Amino acid sequence: MAYRAGRHFLQIPGPSPVPDRISRAIDAAVIDHRGPDFADLGKTVLSGMQRIFKTQSPVVIFPSSGTGAWEACLANVIETGDRVLFYETGQFATLWKQMADRLGIETEFLAGDWRTGVDANRIEDRLRQDTNRSIKAVCCVHHETSCGITSDIASVREVIDTTGHPALLLVDSISGLASVDYEHDKWGADVTVSGSQKGLMMPPGLGFNALSDRAIEAAKNGGSKRSYWDWHEMLACNTSGYFPYTPATTLLYGLREAIAMLEEEGLDNVFDRHRRLADSCREAVSVWGLETVCQNPDEHSNALTGIMVPEGHDADFVRQVILEKFDMSLGTGLGKIKGKAFRIGHLGDINELTLMGVLCGVEMGMGLAGVPHQPGGVEAAMRFLSR
Amino acid sequence: MAYRAGRHFLQIPGPSPVPDRISRAIDAAVIDHRGPDFADLGKTVLSGMQRIFKTQSPVVIFPSSGTGAWEACLANVIETGDRVLFYETGQFATLWKQMADRLGIETEFLAGDWRTGVDANRIEDRLRQDTNRSIKAVCCVHHETSCGITSDIASVREVIDTTGHPALLLVDSISGLASVDYEHDKWGADVTVSGSQKGLMMPPGLGFNALSDRAIEAAKNGGSKRSYWDWHEMLACNTSGYFPYTPATTLLYGLREAIAMLEEEGLDNVFDRHRRLADSCREAVSVWGLETVCQNPDEHSNALTGIMVPEGHDADFVRQVILEKFDMSLGTGLGKIKGKAFRIGHLGDINELTLMGVLCGVEMGMGLAGVPHQPGGVEAAMRFLSR
Amino acid sequence: MAYRAGRHFLQIPGPSPVPDRISRAIDAAVIDHRGPDFADLGKTVLSGMQRIFKTQSPVVIFPSSGTGAWEACLANVIETGDRVLFYETGQFATLWKQMADRLGIETEFLAGDWRTGVDANRIEDRLRQDTNRSIKAVCCVHHETSCGITSDIASVREVIDTTGHPALLLVDSISGLASVDYEHDKWGADVTVSGSQKGLMMPPGLGFNALSDRAIEAAKNGGSKRSYWDWHEMLACNTSGYFPYTPATTLLYGLREAIAMLEEEGLDNVFDRHRRLADSCREAVSVWGLETVCQNPDEHSNALTGIMVPEGHDADFVRQVILEKFDMSLGTGLGKIKGKAFRIGHLGDINELTLMGVLCGVEMGMGLAGVPHQPGGVEAAMRFLSR
Amino acid sequence: MAYRAGRHFLQIPGPSPVPDRISRAIDAAVIDHRGPDFADLGKTVLSGMQRIFKTQSPVVIFPSSGTGAWEACLANVIETGDRVLFYETGQFATLWKQMADRLGIETEFLAGDWRTGVDANRIEDRLRQDTNRSIKAVCCVHHETSCGITSDIASVREVIDTTGHPALLLVDSISGLASVDYEHDKWGADVTVSGSQKGLMMPPGLGFNALSDRAIEAAKNGGSKRSYWDWHEMLACNTSGYFPYTPATTLLYGLREAIAMLEEEGLDNVFDRHRRLADSCREAVSVWGLETVCQNPDEHSNALTGIMVPEGHDADFVRQVILEKFDMSLGTGLGKIKGKAFRIGHLGDINELTLMGVLCGVEMGMGLAGVPHQPGGVEAAMRFLSR
Repeated sequence: MAYRAGRHFLQIPGPSPVPDRISRAIDAAVIDHRGPDFADLGKTVLSGMQRIFKTQSPVVIFPSSGTGAWEACLANVIETGDRVLFYETGQFATLWKQMADRLGIETEFLAGDWRTGVDANRIEDRLRQDTNRSIKAVCCVHHETSCGITSDIASVREVIDTTGHPALLLVDSISGLASVDYEHDKWGADVTVSGSQKGLMMPPGLGFNALSDRAIEAAKNGGSKRSYWDWHEMLACNTSGYFPYTPATTLLYGLREAIAMLEEEGLDNVFDRHRRLADSCREAVSVWGLETVCQNPDEHSNALTGIMVPEGHDADFVRQVILEKFDMSLGTGLGKIKGKAFRIGHLGDINELTLMGVLCGVEMGMGLAGVPHQPGGVEAAMRFLSR
Repeated sequence: MAYRAGRHFLQIPGPSPVPDRISRAIDAAVIDHRGPDFADLGKTVLSGMQRIFKTQSPVVIFPSSGTGAWEACLANVIETGDRVLFYETGQFATLWKQMADRLGIETEFLAGDWRTGVDANRIEDRLRQDTNRSIKAVCCVHHETSCGITSDIASVREVIDTTGHPALLLVDSISGLASVDYEHDKWGADVTVSGSQKGLMMPPGLGFNALSDRAIEAAKNGGSKRSYWDWHEMLACNTSGYFPYTPATTLLYGLREAIAMLEEEGLDNVFDRHRRLADSCREAVSVWGLETVCQNPDEHSNALTGIMVPEGHDADFVRQVILEKFDMSLGTGLGKIKGKAFRIGHLGDINELTLMGVLCGVEMGMGLAGVPHQPGGVEAAMRFLSR
Repeated sequence: MAYRAGRHFLQIPGPSPVPDRISRAIDAAVIDHRGPDFADLGKTVLSGMQRIFKTQSPVVIFPSSGTGAWEACLANVIETGDRVLFYETGQFATLWKQMADRLGIETEFLAGDWRTGVDANRIEDRLRQDTNRSIKAVCCVHHETSCGITSDIASVREVIDTTGHPALLLVDSISGLASVDYEHDKWGADVTVSGSQKGLMMPPGLGFNALSDRAIEAAKNGGSKRSYWDWHEMLACNTSGYFPYTPATTLLYGLREAIAMLEEEGLDNVFDRHRRLADSCREAVSVWGLETVCQNPDEHSNALTGIMVPEGHDADFVRQVILEKFDMSLGTGLGKIKGKAFRIGHLGDINELTLMGVLCGVEMGMGLAGVPHQPGGVEAAMRFLSR
Repeated sequence: MAYRAGRHFLQIPGPSPVPDRISRAIDAAVIDHRGPDFADLGKTVLSGMQRIFKTQSPVVIFPSSGTGAWEACLANVIETGDRVLFYETGQFATLWKQMADRLGIETEFLAGDWRTGVDANRIEDRLRQDTNRSIKAVCCVHHETSCGITSDIASVREVIDTTGHPALLLVDSISGLASVDYEHDKWGADVTVSGSQKGLMMPPGLGFNALSDRAIEAAKNGGSKRSYWDWHEMLACNTSGYFPYTPATTLLYGLREAIAMLEEEGLDNVFDRHRRLADSCREAVSVWGLETVCQNPDEHSNALTGIMVPEGHDADFVRQVILEKFDMSLGTGLGKIKGKAFRIGHLGDINELTLMGVLCGVEMGMGLAGVPHQPGGVEAAMRFLSR
């Protein structure tokens, strides 16, 4: 294929662009995963990920996609046949619930509109009804990648506690972690699931489970039949910096570098940067006269922006025009909003001018694709960033 | 830590050293795994792996370790509670069987001595006894990494067929594939399990299942509750070159390069090279007056050599001396042969002079560690390679 | 130093950003520069550079900066004490002339205003006056990097021919080559000087001399005392693909890849892309109400745009604000236009959205720096690129 | 071309193999060479190189080969027509002298036998005869790469001082620096010339001049017409960490890493390692019954070993056999010893086991090429390294 000049704009909401420092760190010779040098690597990334998740409890790292980390979470604390409550924030909540169905878990789905986050009151209502405590866990997506919506995880913890229900709180923050604030311990999550290819700026290939004492306890005596995903042997090996089976060594090199970079910038600065870029993006959307998928201002994602295209227009055609004309990949509308929305990823290793290139591409692409919109979105974003 | 000059000799039996071409291929920008360019990558590696496994049936690629590919194999065709026959060729056969136990499978273990490969007659005997056909599968390790022993997989197929037993034949060739000959279709395997970090010269992080029609059929109506490892949705997506969840994109770049390199050299030449290097290594061992772990000359691995140290000597002390003094990592004795044997990996991207450096390191290291042996092993290997 | 997130915008007019394919090509093991594999590399880059310069005559490659290639050009055809005519197009013409002075060459400088290119009529006049043919060469900068001005080299050749003057035509196209059209043979240059770090998308470290038969002839019997820069031994070695002294092997790997990429895209497409991006940049400048340094529309560079800031404002302050606030490096005004102008590099591996990010950065930065300008430049560029 | 498995053994006496850390450092984005971040890079490598040369005086870095650094040295302190005394230690002394001839310098050559180093007494004799002080400089090769001979530079300084002759002492330590001890200040060199691709473990592309006050003074008022190689403007720019023309930025990244690695290991440890490896190599040569090119034990190079092949045998045929059969590049015999000797490079990033692979390759290759030799060289080297 002919070389297409210039850097491709990978603006899907993950995988996000991998910065050179991480790529070069990954491009190092594999070492003996049973040798003495490995322990230092293992301990460094394991403790580093605790700081990223903001937890004192262990974090488990799998060679897997984020999907694998979903399954690991369920397999360790939920037994086949157990009842679990999911909340439909969007496509990824739906897929996680489908996974649970396939694993033989009894699922319940609190229906959502894909445009608002978790309403903890509805969870509270359901838990109150569950007088025989049949619900083993509540599963919520903290940061719904398909819609660009964040949910208030602390509020879910609060209603679980208020009702005195023993359900575990299992959270997906695959695309939220390290791009928007996440507090595993403070918010009271029992398991938080994440992946490498979003805010962590890594290639895909690593999945994470941040645990709690209650989750570890639940896993000890329960959960499904499991081996690969089992926390027990993993935690035992991790103590000395090793893994029970061959880890994805080179990706761990990258993770070590990613953690170092996030901490050099400072997590709070990372979150501020994401907010600033997201705000400027939303300024543009607003001036364009378009709606974000997310309808509640408090719930806006700072890692991506979902944009509804007007009735009668095909969001995927906009994406195609932009890809062909301007070499930028945007996220498609998934599931219920297929063709109705597209998504701009602005997470991970991104800065102002790249975002401005992105917004220019979107504004020009909408024009070329015949999507009705007001001009001036880019101008508005520039004004915002010039404050 | 102070820089240690020169290239570390990674001579464990996998992960094997990653050649520069593969490392640089991996070090490329992540692309949209839903975009049009990805399909070409997906199709290239999927069809390429069929040629490597020598199969017309599909090969499934997981973001996982080889262990994960073990679990995938079991989960798709074996139901919890099913009976499966394992053959104890060494530590990895033992671990695979343990995994099956954990997954709630009823396992049987044909005991072995860790110094010889699979005796198909014993499998035949067991299958003949199994008059009610309760055994759903026979699991064999083609290339036992813990001992350096290959087993005759075709002979196992033959006894299954001879007895008319419907059991599936599930094979682990994690460290055999692409370093010693493996014929998935011809030998009649139903599922072959492998990983990226051995003969494929890749970093760890990808697991493989090569399938057969019978295996796909068995998975359709059976197997355990599963989601991540499920072949069904995977195969459906793979048809168009995509994956149901985010694949480990950069490792797939490396895999594409690995396949290209193996095919440039020619698989038969790859196998010949491994045999030639293994033969020269065994010449050295023989002159040293030491025993290989593998006792049957027909079953010698060409990817690694397990060496028994004389009674009263600690194989791990030899390894430690060699690591500290000569910066070479060798494989430890695992399980039953812990401390009694060490293993030299000579698989993947390796040539004559690197092997000679390895053998010099072993000969010197044994001397320094006080392991009694005859001199001249290195000389013998040089004579062999000078023929 | 803290990690600064996102990709730095390197928008100086060279070195230009190096695309990953070239960086990875450079990141390969050094080979024996006297061994058989090297000859293929040597021949590939030497013949490739002939196609890039559009010449049938040899191209010489030095391990040097572009400055070194200036000196090589002079040393081979000009003797100490010879007279050479330079034309003051800007800072680089001035520096080249200074170099000649230092080398003991008698220089003449046709004064210019730094805002227009070479006026061949003035050269014609001077040559006509030179009745004793004391002028050995005319030196012109094809693409004046300090101002963003291209000159009509063919017109210079024409006046030399018209006057029947034997002077050689020595041309600097360091920043023009491979970003704007350049025809060494057709335009009648005797030596063209270039460097790796501009349109060739490479890191700095290689200098080039494209030759003509007349130049080779002149060098045979003349030129200054020289060794490193001497063409003679170089051309002799190059015939078989080798170099008289150790070449910068890894940079030659990169050059091989650069040539391949330029030819994949097609040189004409490369030039069209540069023109399109330059046009859109100039649209913005025009709407901003600012002047380009280049005053003659026919002479606009497509590789960079020099922008005059209004009286009383400091161009370097604008650059500083943009660097600090938006992590973008722009080119300073050099020499006579120090502080009065800044330069946007848009050459090499660049595409539309990156340019839009650049223009947004400049528009915002001018605002923040208090430089008076009309809004709407970015909008104008978007309109242009949406045609 | 088909992939040839395993790592090529690049055992020429430079370029030496580039370690991954340096390659990855080079593989980083180019930065603005006029921007604020560059100054830190510049200062770091400039001061680091002073420590490597062991000098308090400045070190100048050119984008050039080592040959270029030869020319720079001459151009700054020697005027066309000046007389300079060279000492024929081998091919590189001869080439340096030829360069001086081409530059119009009056050269004298103290003839040598290519098997012994500089005899300072002969220099003393010549200087004493030079009663009118016409000799401006004495040029010596500290580490003659073509023969594997080191010369006692301090002794040359001593005779210059003893005679009270004002000649400058110009030294080539291109292949000696950073592999064998070199003390620019202590030994009294006025200029030391070096390059990046030897003990510094870098790719080729950088040349160095370490200076003295006397050399700087000589350059101020003398030297030849020059521009590219001129120290004056270079030193002025270097003060603030910048360069007068575009430096080879990415190679400077590599140099920064190289200096860091050498200092992590410790220069004395680096020299000890080279000595130990060289000693073991010489043990092998001695047992083989062959002669080293270097005849004086005190003058053995620790960076390479030149080996004479017996009369009637072609050293280049040995090299060819080894390259084809074992994928190892050795150095050819140059000039007067063409075909009579080959050279093993064992400098830079090399350790014991790599050297053992090299020696095995040489021992096997000589056997295959029919070169008469005693067996046991490899054994002897192993015995040496096992002490």
